[in-house]
Amino acid sequence: MELGLLYSGGKDSTLAALVLDQFYDVTLTTAHFGITDDWKHARDTAEAAGFAFERLELEPDVAREAADRIREDGYPRNGIQLVHHHALERLATEGFDAVGDGTRRDDRVPTVSRAQAQSLEDRHGVDYVAPLSGFGRRAVDRLVEDALEVTAGPSEEIPRADYEAELRAFIAEEDGPEAIREYFPDHEQTYVTDVADGLR
Amino acid sequence: MELGLLYSGGKDSTLAALVLDQFYDVTLTTAHFGITDDWKHARDTAEAAGFAFERLELEPDVAREAADRIREDGYPRNGIQLVHHHALERLATEGFDAVGDGTRRDDRVPTVSRAQAQSLEDRHGVDYVAPLSGFGRRAVDRLVEDALEVTAGPSEEIPRADYEAELRAFIAEEDGPEAIREYFPDHEQTYVTDVADGLR
Repeated sequence: MELGLLYSGGKDSTLAALVLDQFYDVTLTTAHFGITDDWKHARDTAEAAGFAFERLELEPDVAREAADRIREDGYPRNGIQLVHHHALERLATEGFDAVGDGTRRDDRVPTVSRAQAQSLEDRHGVDYVAPLSGFGRRAVDRLVEDALEVTAGPSEEIPRADYEAELRAFIAEEDGPEAIREYFPDHEQTYVTDVADGLR
Repeated sequence: MELGLLYSGGKDSTLAALVLDQFYDVTLTTAHFGITDDWKHARDTAEAAGFAFERLELEPDVAREAADRIREDGYPRNGIQLVHHHALERLATEGFDAVGDGTRRDDRVPTVSRAQAQSLEDRHGVDYVAPLSGFGRRAVDRLVEDALEVTAGPSEEIPRADYEAELRAFIAEEDGPEAIREYFPDHEQTYVTDVADGLR
């Protein structure tokens, strides 16, 4: 079975890929607006890990809508959530038997509720799977330590192909760089450079 | 890392074992009250699949409490839930780094909420993982079709080492067999006889 996994190059989505790899033909799919070149980092990690890779272009209108939402809220959570659901909708029309993401049990954003998962499956005739949603932060960290080579640092400095990076760039371009510090709290980010031998 | 997985010999917990096998040293652990010999079916499937196997003896008081609850409710859901949580508590004290079960996204019973998972982890210093909780029924069925040899039939006829079988036997002994038809709706059950080549 063919599965398309939303992929950022971060540790969660890379670990999700390894979990699914045993059962599906996994294509790592990085959704982006074409605002930055950050998707290339995800492609490089996908190649290092030996996975098929695709880009999925998102609607520019959704970036605008998400940025507006972030400005209104004063924090990024709902804007990122909006982009994630749009990305899943787009991915579900790409012809895969199943689609998935790397959301964890403890994630506050993005999240996909059971009702949203069921709706996505029913409307598009695909399975939606979230292989890490039954794993907490510490369990994921322990598996990552065994399975992945990871580089960590502040979110401003770490190259990642998640929506946050593009939404930051989008807002910075329109509102100036100080807007970023206002809306996006600084937090630790990671990206994966390789996968342990034997797991691929 | 050592992981103890609550194991019934059914398709969900067998599939959960295969998912976890890539990352953990998995011991399949069948919790039972010593009321029936159904645990031997789980042991046979564990052996066929090449997994380590252990029995976990539950407190007889919990069987009584669960049976009382089922009689009061008129249906088995809360009684089975009670036994599952007791089994997880017992398993969490067995010295594993992580414990888990085969609960699916759509399961109505047993379920483990995020708060219950966090509490179990904090009190016992173990990780709790539910590798199928991000998979719906259809996704699980498709994976099972690829990965497992399964026998299906009505729940009365299929030998399984889940709590329901023992609670049925317990109630039948005290209240007679007609009580079973009153409390337990008949439903399709499965047990696994083997795992596809290449997955173990």
